[in-house]
Amino acid sequence: VTDAETRGIELLTRGRSGDISAVSQLITALEGDSAVGRAVRPHVHSAAGHAHVLGVTGAPGSGKSTLVNAIMREARARRRSVGVVAVDPSSSLTAGSILGDRIRMQEHTLDPGIFVRSMSSRGKLGGLARATVDAIAVLDAAGRDLVIVETVGAGQADVEIVQIAQTTLVVSVPGLGDDIQAIKAGLLETADIHVVNKADRPESNRTVASLVEMLGLRCAEPHSWTAPVLSTEALNGGGIRELLDAVDEHLAWLKSSGEFTRREREAALARIQTVASDLLLKRMRETSFATDFSAEVEAVIARRLDPHAAAVRLIDHLAPRR
Amino acid sequence: VTDAETRGIELLTRGRSGDISAVSQLITALEGDSAVGRAVRPHVHSAAGHAHVLGVTGAPGSGKSTLVNAIMREARARRRSVGVVAVDPSSSLTAGSILGDRIRMQEHTLDPGIFVRSMSSRGKLGGLARATVDAIAVLDAAGRDLVIVETVGAGQADVEIVQIAQTTLVVSVPGLGDDIQAIKAGLLETADIHVVNKADRPESNRTVASLVEMLGLRCAEPHSWTAPVLSTEALNGGGIRELLDAVDEHLAWLKSSGEFTRREREAALARIQTVASDLLLKRMRETSFATDFSAEVEAVIARRLDPHAAAVRLIDHLAPRR
Repeated sequence: VTDAETRGIELLTRGRSGDISAVSQLITALEGDSAVGRAVRPHVHSAAGHAHVLGVTGAPGSGKSTLVNAIMREARARRRSVGVVAVDPSSSLTAGSILGDRIRMQEHTLDPGIFVRSMSSRGKLGGLARATVDAIAVLDAAGRDLVIVETVGAGQADVEIVQIAQTTLVVSVPGLGDDIQAIKAGLLETADIHVVNKADRPESNRTVASLVEMLGLRCAEPHSWTAPVLSTEALNGGGIRELLDAVDEHLAWLKSSGEFTRREREAALARIQTVASDLLLKRMRETSFATDFSAEVEAVIARRLDPHAAAVRLIDHLAPRR
Repeated sequence: VTDAETRGIELLTRGRSGDISAVSQLITALEGDSAVGRAVRPHVHSAAGHAHVLGVTGAPGSGKSTLVNAIMREARARRRSVGVVAVDPSSSLTAGSILGDRIRMQEHTLDPGIFVRSMSSRGKLGGLARATVDAIAVLDAAGRDLVIVETVGAGQADVEIVQIAQTTLVVSVPGLGDDIQAIKAGLLETADIHVVNKADRPESNRTVASLVEMLGLRCAEPHSWTAPVLSTEALNGGGIRELLDAVDEHLAWLKSSGEFTRREREAALARIQTVASDLLLKRMRETSFATDFSAEVEAVIARRLDPHAAAVRLIDHLAPRR
């Protein structure tokens, strides 16, 4: 057992007994791929697997953060511990995520049953999904009953994150522009539960009706889950109790239908492949061949070799066909 | 020379002489990775490299499509042929992209110097960037002087697309919500030219001022390009001439500064690595090892093995360390 491993296990033990600072340090260690982070990874994984991971996604302006706050409050009232990972595409230029984080933490700052962590891209778009998945695992391993992942829902990172979530809420809002709804549309299929937030708005009923109509176009299979369309007013807590009931119901359905195990297996395979792909790319950059590869790069620029053919050369060297 | 290659070369020749249907078929062939697509790839690459690739990105609702239309009109007035690739995150549920496509094509339908293609994610988010990059290459190879790539600018796909573009416009609009601006903020750094569209709005001057202020925070290096902030009213063509002048100026700067070659080299290397990573992932799924890999997947689910360790096993098998 190395020092790094001892330190990692100590942080995990403290995190599991409610030490928020230890949880925070663990997430940072994994995010930075430090010695502690690498050493603690298997321990985090073996301690995880008990949380209900809830994805909350939707167009900008749909009031996701307010909704997540309301869900947190309701979950705490049901005596469940909560961890939140908010994925924020804002950059260092605005520092919006940190500010939002602080404002949100203030409300719950004295409650150790609440932990909120913002993940910001800050120029590392590629690693955002991986860092988020690691943060979810840490919160799960630290014994949080409910782990909420909040994403803007417009990027490729979301696909991987949605795969980790057991239950996905897609938040719509009455009266947003068509262009914005189009972003959301790509995510509609991934919803286990649809939420129409800001239900006090006059166009609310129309939004619910058009969602129900859109979803009705798909054939429901027998014994399958039909994603309900629920209305909420997150600001005053309206509809939140019913929403959390539906979330619980979905988890119960997942387990009784065997879908839970099927998704778990699919997510594990996808995760292994993603990590493998990341590692291969890293190895590709590190290998001495990468340095010797400038001839191929020059050939591509000179239009003598296309990028696809160059890529085949690179991987045939790195990973010979069997 | 195979039949597929003959057919591909024929399509490319027809595309280069202005046959829009041939261009369209080529894009489809590459997108679907058909025999023709695979065979024609090197020919497309060797014919490409002459177009000015212009990325146009910005928050939903900023009027990007109208702006792109206005740029197209101005470019045609300057006797340049234009190709447009509109990356649309909408899904098959809404079919918004196809509709938008048709509406846009109508205006220019009799002009063979215009070609518009929408790329929609339709459940293949992972492949969107690759398909878009291929479409750009086809339009370039078909001899289009200007290739415009329009993206929503909120996803990881954009990073790869921005890398291909020689000049990137980031479109802002006065008076959008903070949440939406946050999305855009992550893209501000990538801008070669800032456009504040809908400049007739009262808050327009404030938006220009706050952009200039935000950008001023960064230290300008000597001999570097300082991204100008331009105002447009795309609907009536206001400011479009000045915008296209700035686009030309940026290209001239890229070439005179040596930045053109530097970016070209960087983009080629990134592209090779991305394709290699995709191919490796594909090979990983196809290899017999993947079938035999269920024991590792079960071990991950049972929490005896973490995904990272499983991934290392997978790639050590597939790509032995040297």
